[in-house]
Amino acid sequence: MIRVNEHFSALQPSYLFSDISKRVAAFQAAHPEREIIRLGIGDVTQPLPAACVKAFRAAVDEMGRAETFRGYPPYEGLDFLREKIAEHDFGARGIRIGADEIFISDGAKSDTANIQELFAPNIRVAVPDPVYPVYVDSQVMAGRGGAPQDGRYAELVYLESTKENGFVPAPPNESVDLIYLCFPNNPTGAVATKAELRAWVHYAHERKALILFDAAYEAFIRDPELPRSIYEIPGATEVAIECRSFSKTAGFTGTRCAYAVIPHTCMAYNSSGSQEALNPLWYRRQSTKFNGVSYPVQRAAEAVYTPEGQSQVRRINDYYLRNAELIRREMTALGFSVSGGEHSPYLWVDVKMDSWSFFDLLLTRAGVVCTPGSGFGRCGQGFVRISSFNDFENTERAMQRVRQALEKK
Amino acid sequence: MIRVNEHFSALQPSYLFSDISKRVAAFQAAHPEREIIRLGIGDVTQPLPAACVKAFRAAVDEMGRAETFRGYPPYEGLDFLREKIAEHDFGARGIRIGADEIFISDGAKSDTANIQELFAPNIRVAVPDPVYPVYVDSQVMAGRGGAPQDGRYAELVYLESTKENGFVPAPPNESVDLIYLCFPNNPTGAVATKAELRAWVHYAHERKALILFDAAYEAFIRDPELPRSIYEIPGATEVAIECRSFSKTAGFTGTRCAYAVIPHTCMAYNSSGSQEALNPLWYRRQSTKFNGVSYPVQRAAEAVYTPEGQSQVRRINDYYLRNAELIRREMTALGFSVSGGEHSPYLWVDVKMDSWSFFDLLLTRAGVVCTPGSGFGRCGQGFVRISSFNDFENTERAMQRVRQALEKK
Repeated sequence: MIRVNEHFSALQPSYLFSDISKRVAAFQAAHPEREIIRLGIGDVTQPLPAACVKAFRAAVDEMGRAETFRGYPPYEGLDFLREKIAEHDFGARGIRIGADEIFISDGAKSDTANIQELFAPNIRVAVPDPVYPVYVDSQVMAGRGGAPQDGRYAELVYLESTKENGFVPAPPNESVDLIYLCFPNNPTGAVATKAELRAWVHYAHERKALILFDAAYEAFIRDPELPRSIYEIPGATEVAIECRSFSKTAGFTGTRCAYAVIPHTCMAYNSSGSQEALNPLWYRRQSTKFNGVSYPVQRAAEAVYTPEGQSQVRRINDYYLRNAELIRREMTALGFSVSGGEHSPYLWVDVKMDSWSFFDLLLTRAGVVCTPGSGFGRCGQGFVRISSFNDFENTERAMQRVRQALEKK
Repeated sequence: MIRVNEHFSALQPSYLFSDISKRVAAFQAAHPEREIIRLGIGDVTQPLPAACVKAFRAAVDEMGRAETFRGYPPYEGLDFLREKIAEHDFGARGIRIGADEIFISDGAKSDTANIQELFAPNIRVAVPDPVYPVYVDSQVMAGRGGAPQDGRYAELVYLESTKENGFVPAPPNESVDLIYLCFPNNPTGAVATKAELRAWVHYAHERKALILFDAAYEAFIRDPELPRSIYEIPGATEVAIECRSFSKTAGFTGTRCAYAVIPHTCMAYNSSGSQEALNPLWYRRQSTKFNGVSYPVQRAAEAVYTPEGQSQVRRINDYYLRNAELIRREMTALGFSVSGGEHSPYLWVDVKMDSWSFFDLLLTRAGVVCTPGSGFGRCGQGFVRISSFNDFENTERAMQRVRQALEKK
């Protein structure tokens, strides 16, 4: 009898974005005259940089001619892209990462969800709260969550990200084996300092743990003192995998390209206590279950590293940061305590009331959609996430309306 | 302590293609004057159809303009593509498959490797021998293989595909839960008849088993009596998932697009014996671990279904089939018994000697590279696979040389 993986039944249905859609639709139906501005989404709005479009087109044309046609790409990605990444994203910042430590993929979501396959079923996993749900759900599907209770899972360790710790949790006292960290954080917008990451790298060495560092939003960091990669911390190449993406950096959410860094020195342990290198293990996983990223897409990603690409990408990120600055200023002026939005596209606003009540207030009074923080975990209760991924004009109008709505409250 | 998934250590290293490369390189180094023709590979050589290139380019341009830019695609694929597939690949052939039963992905390899995640760890799995290694290795990584012994795994059931059964194994006497079938087959080129598939669908109903039907090569079938989809068999929508790909059909090996069909009626069982629908379970899996296929790639795939796309794709497949016919004729004339190559791009040649010895013979005497059948499993010993994915001119010259080499033997 073909039996289902019953760990799926432990998954708690996520109604966050569908609930948002339903409430927005109901409001719009009742008030068809009201225009709604969405600051809830985490998807980019600016078009693909011109340099990427140009390279993308040229590669599509290559695929149409017999002399330049390309078949299966290598599982691990094409060298021209891996080399540019190693040089620009790491080498230029004084970090030694080789091209052969970089694996190109179709998304940081795929990577952060799939990398757990390399580990034993009974490892102990720590996730942030609030959290990007993929970390949790991929572990639950693999049977590492345990029983669901009160919106959490019994076997997971939750790293509480609160106002008190500046939304950057310190390592726990107990031992955990795999730790998800994401900075700049989704949803809190918090960025860890070097000292804070040092504490985690130290912890990982001491406890023989591994850090899965999600740096999907690193391009928004402007302060050179803040680490954009965990590999800026000495010893991190032995205890950390880093995931990055072109999605937010270069508007690739609809184009799909990302990468994972697994240094040759990065290790896990087998049951006899010997070390095993994770780089060849991931290669084996990818070569078995993945056939590489579309050739034209890899060429488009490569163009991010041309001089034009670099300045276009910088301009796009600055555009969103300008939105973020505006939101931050306005919400602060209205008396809210705001985290993020300085080196991050997300703002995390302490609304001092139930997240959904504030969501409803903003929707009905200002016609503005945000994301209720409680949807990201228990520690998100009392917060909302506001996204800077929008047009500046929309963001300006949204903030104007929020001001009017909340001032008259 | 971060512990590795020790099932990876049960994986038997596959040296097939690297061994081939090494022997070819060694021969080339010793005989730099000899030109080598490769009929070993399973990768296409004809460029992307013009209709696909045109649509691909137009979609890339859309991504470069703010008004037409697209962010995250839906996890399950874009409706325009799912609807075309439902209409052309199924509806037009009298099979009722809804667009919402189709999941677009980046490759049939990803799908055939990932779908096992939906099932319990202790299900009993049957795989063909010879086999596309992804079926076996993805099961071994999930712990369902058991101990490796003599090139097989103790817990897997092997469906022996031999000359005696025309390379189409009948259902076993014992009960298995998940069955991989692939027709037209890689590597044997065999195609199952409707009667043969009926026996499998009947078996699956009787034993409450599920069939994973890999139809990646269906576009090469020319006989209207041969089933191109398992859903041509009554009752199959309840017991079968079908995987298809644009890779071989339309030259997408480097562009990456495929799809899985999971009918709403397709079920598995939970521990209390109740049925659970697999379609929503796969949606949950994909939405957690995958972020959809690149928008321009989905537009390129959609163009396969335009009238120009259809005739261009037909022309490409006919081109390879012409190669296959030539190889089949020549090898048969040389006295070999040949399977496949009629409704399939692969030819499976009974060489009546050790697969690797014949490989060496062909390489050294004719400068032609084939794939030793023993690399695909125990039942592949004594066979070689010859691929029709090449230029016609190369195929012609290769066959000429093979004839000369073997006639003088």
